[in-house]
Amino acid sequence: MEKKVTVIGGGTGTYVVLSGLKKYPVNLAVVVSMFDSGGSTGRLRDQLGVLPPGDLRQCLVALSEAPILWRKLFLYRFEKGDLAGHNFGNIFLSALEKISKNYQAVVDTAGFILKTKGEVIPVTFQQAHLCVLYKNGKLVEGEGQIDKNFFEKSAIIKAYLKPEPKANPKAIRRILQSDFIIVGPGDLYTSIVPVLLVKEVKKALSQTKAKIIYILNLMTKRGQATDYKGSDYLKDMSFYLGRLPDVIIANNGKIPKQILAWYKKYKENQVVDDINDKNFSGQVYRADLVDKKKIEINEADFFVDPASRSILRHDSLKLAKILSKIIL
Amino acid sequence: MEKKVTVIGGGTGTYVVLSGLKKYPVNLAVVVSMFDSGGSTGRLRDQLGVLPPGDLRQCLVALSEAPILWRKLFLYRFEKGDLAGHNFGNIFLSALEKISKNYQAVVDTAGFILKTKGEVIPVTFQQAHLCVLYKNGKLVEGEGQIDKNFFEKSAIIKAYLKPEPKANPKAIRRILQSDFIIVGPGDLYTSIVPVLLVKEVKKALSQTKAKIIYILNLMTKRGQATDYKGSDYLKDMSFYLGRLPDVIIANNGKIPKQILAWYKKYKENQVVDDINDKNFSGQVYRADLVDKKKIEINEADFFVDPASRSILRHDSLKLAKILSKIIL
Repeated sequence: MEKKVTVIGGGTGTYVVLSGLKKYPVNLAVVVSMFDSGGSTGRLRDQLGVLPPGDLRQCLVALSEAPILWRKLFLYRFEKGDLAGHNFGNIFLSALEKISKNYQAVVDTAGFILKTKGEVIPVTFQQAHLCVLYKNGKLVEGEGQIDKNFFEKSAIIKAYLKPEPKANPKAIRRILQSDFIIVGPGDLYTSIVPVLLVKEVKKALSQTKAKIIYILNLMTKRGQATDYKGSDYLKDMSFYLGRLPDVIIANNGKIPKQILAWYKKYKENQVVDDINDKNFSGQVYRADLVDKKKIEINEADFFVDPASRSILRHDSLKLAKILSKIIL
Repeated sequence: MEKKVTVIGGGTGTYVVLSGLKKYPVNLAVVVSMFDSGGSTGRLRDQLGVLPPGDLRQCLVALSEAPILWRKLFLYRFEKGDLAGHNFGNIFLSALEKISKNYQAVVDTAGFILKTKGEVIPVTFQQAHLCVLYKNGKLVEGEGQIDKNFFEKSAIIKAYLKPEPKANPKAIRRILQSDFIIVGPGDLYTSIVPVLLVKEVKKALSQTKAKIIYILNLMTKRGQATDYKGSDYLKDMSFYLGRLPDVIIANNGKIPKQILAWYKKYKENQVVDDINDKNFSGQVYRADLVDKKKIEINEADFFVDPASRSILRHDSLKLAKILSKIIL
């Protein structure tokens, strides 16, 4: 029987993991964050009262085996006029929500249309916002606002969801039945942690027999993981997981100089891999995981959300290969 | 072999004809107007530089045999926020145009996704606007503007497209090869005439062996067919067709009083059927063609385009039945 592998998160990192893993013979699912409030997603959420479509859209497209044109369409972002900054996929999910009986029907219809391989499971069907408290006493509410607070020098000491959402029972069942759970890569506080803040999720993670694989980020993230080393990421992640991961995957490939220089401008650096026997007793896999293809900076993305800039990616094929060695 | 039936037009009247006829064993196509400039379509056209999606969308949905949810989605109109007034289908076609090589690919992809029975053929792939000159010397450019000029008391004496668009060769071939061509019902100047103003279309209509069936409107249309009788509609239509139709279909059913009262407010009345041996030598079919289902007035439609109000429809099944008697 195929191994049940469940990715937890949202955003680009999760997209990369899913698009690589879908090529392997695993029973794949993603428990996706439903707390984005930035850019196109945030505006649709505010203006139409829909659930945030952004992370869901990315996961759907990552798992899609529909023709390339269809997938391109879902990621297409309008550049001008009334629709400026909106993704077609976000608009699609919002309209679908408006004419559907419930949100499960939205997910089912979108999955059918996009011919997804694997299941996309929203972590909740309730509206909630991520809030973080910094060491200096500053409280920021909403993922979009936290992303924008990237100049913050203080560290996050507390994160919670407001109001506390009820988990989608499907997400909990899936976590309990999984053989492997993958967290990361991705923005720690604005992509991965929000899912783990859902109470029943954390509880299920403490009960499941699944091995947890943590894929370490390539870069530090100013404002939420400022100057983080590998062990800092691990410490925070373990706190929100409620347990240590069983496996860590870390990059040991070289990041092109120009890319490092680009991040330098934002005071972000390559993560120092200080994971060792003293701070982690599980398995550590290291490999060159850097996507060397020149990644274009999408001007439209900047327009919408200056804080979501990210030009470096894990290579989805390299990542899937090492994951498959662990899983299969 | 199935008879080749080609509907010419756009808008609600064409939608009604197509959705009825698709249930009959005919080889169906529609040569659709590409000159709308009002409401959602007009804004997308202006802001994104796309071809006007509105009439195309309606024809695609009319011919769709996709699940009802899919069709509902394409007609869904956003009511709030950045997307207020925009149809999902219009947004879909606009995004698709942005990522497609050419407009034929847009039509093909949309037809595939919507599982259309029959072919939707844009009359042109070039940008052009409808202009009309009134007897009083007033010149109005753009379908949207003409629709808004409904208080006009003067009559239209000239209509033309600016710039003169080149016809889609597929549209011309289809007209030449048709057994039947159907024009109407629908707003004379803002739905049917624009297609006939494309030079090659008019030429093809003079060359084709196809019989032309003209379905007379139920109501007069203030500003473009003010106080028109049947013979007035026939006169204008014949002028733009470049020939008389072979068959006229007229309603002899009663229009509910409340609906007539509603139109009365806008100074629009039931069309007086004065078609007789003296003004028309072809066949005339008369039947009760009124859609008696209470048609809701969509507030969102009003918001977008106060001039496109229309609460009375031909009954698509009754219409298709009488058409099938003529065609089959």
